Amino acid sequence: MSALPGIGRRTALRLVLHLLKRQEADFERFTSSLITLKKEVHYCRECHNISDTEVCNICSSPKRDRSTVCVVENIQDVMAIENTGQYNGLYHVLGGIISPMDGIGPQDLEIDSLATRAQNGEIKEVILALPTTAEGDTTNFVIYKRLQPTGVQVTQLARGVAVGSDLEYIDEMTLGKSILNRTVFQ
Amino acid sequence: MSALPGIGRRTALRLVLHLLKRQEADFERFTSSLITLKKEVHYCRECHNISDTEVCNICSSPKRDRSTVCVVENIQDVMAIENTGQYNGLYHVLGGIISPMDGIGPQDLEIDSLATRAQNGEIKEVILALPTTAEGDTTNFVIYKRLQPTGVQVTQLARGVAVGSDLEYIDEMTLGKSILNRTVFQ
Repeated sequence: MSALPGIGRRTALRLVLHLLKRQEADFERFTSSLITLKKEVHYCRECHNISDTEVCNICSSPKRDRSTVCVVENIQDVMAIENTGQYNGLYHVLGGIISPMDGIGPQDLEIDSLATRAQNGEIKEVILALPTTAEGDTTNFVIYKRLQPTGVQVTQLARGVAVGSDLEYIDEMTLGKSILNRTVFQ
Repeated sequence: MSALPGIGRRTALRLVLHLLKRQEADFERFTSSLITLKKEVHYCRECHNISDTEVCNICSSPKRDRSTVCVVENIQDVMAIENTGQYNGLYHVLGGIISPMDGIGPQDLEIDSLATRAQNGEIKEVILALPTTAEGDTTNFVIYKRLQPTGVQVTQLARGVAVGSDLEYIDEMTLGKSILNRTVFQ
């Protein structure tokens, strides 16, 4: 139990003692749903998001715009973007970002499969929605280079001022980007 | 002394006792520089930034792009944008933003003078760089309506993801804007 992320020895003990105290039927339900989780949740063949079918709900939906693919680091980011209600295209989950410190290179990520997908003729735009950190920028650049021969347009999330923020508290880099990328007022 | 912002009764007492202990000449220098400050610092006739001349350094510089005016709430914001090194136009300091709670309406701000300035024929673009709060948005809208008849292009700072940030920790509004305002990767 203590091997789970963010769970130390003391918390692990508390959880285990709690499970021991549970009713038999209750405990049965808990373990069997864990087993079902592992058995029935797959990764989508297309976008590598979690799915209970071979191709996920988003990839197979006729309502989604199939000409746009949003590249994200992980499954949480798919959820974050879905929650905004502002995006109606498809996704591509990389499964991480390039990080030499952690030994993660381009070959460990779903970059090849993205390049293959981008050649299917349907995709017109790839939106890079990776973290705006040095690792994210490196990964963006590697993907951009891989996609360049395909002729697909590559865009990235706007850098700028967060909604509800005061200019005084913004770092210089972000404020500079928000001036360069200013938008027409409407 | 305790009427100064952020200085309570106890701090005021400490400051006053410190001033009393100072050397006569030293104290003289302190008070005379305060008097000079009040007497010699003016507000620029054009942009209402602080200045030691009637027209400030920025407004009178031949190196600045006179076709762009960046509208900011206060003088600190001029400094923040200057520090980014990404802006080479002129400024217009409003002296606040519309805030019905504090009894600040459009007539209390330098909006009329901005509208007059925008008609000088030189100015092609007005960049709204106000806080991205409800008050900022209201002020943006009032200024936009005032400038519409002049035909000057009105833009605003990009809303988006801060540099060095992870998608998981961004609010939905900002993430949504950063998708809508996405930029071509380069």
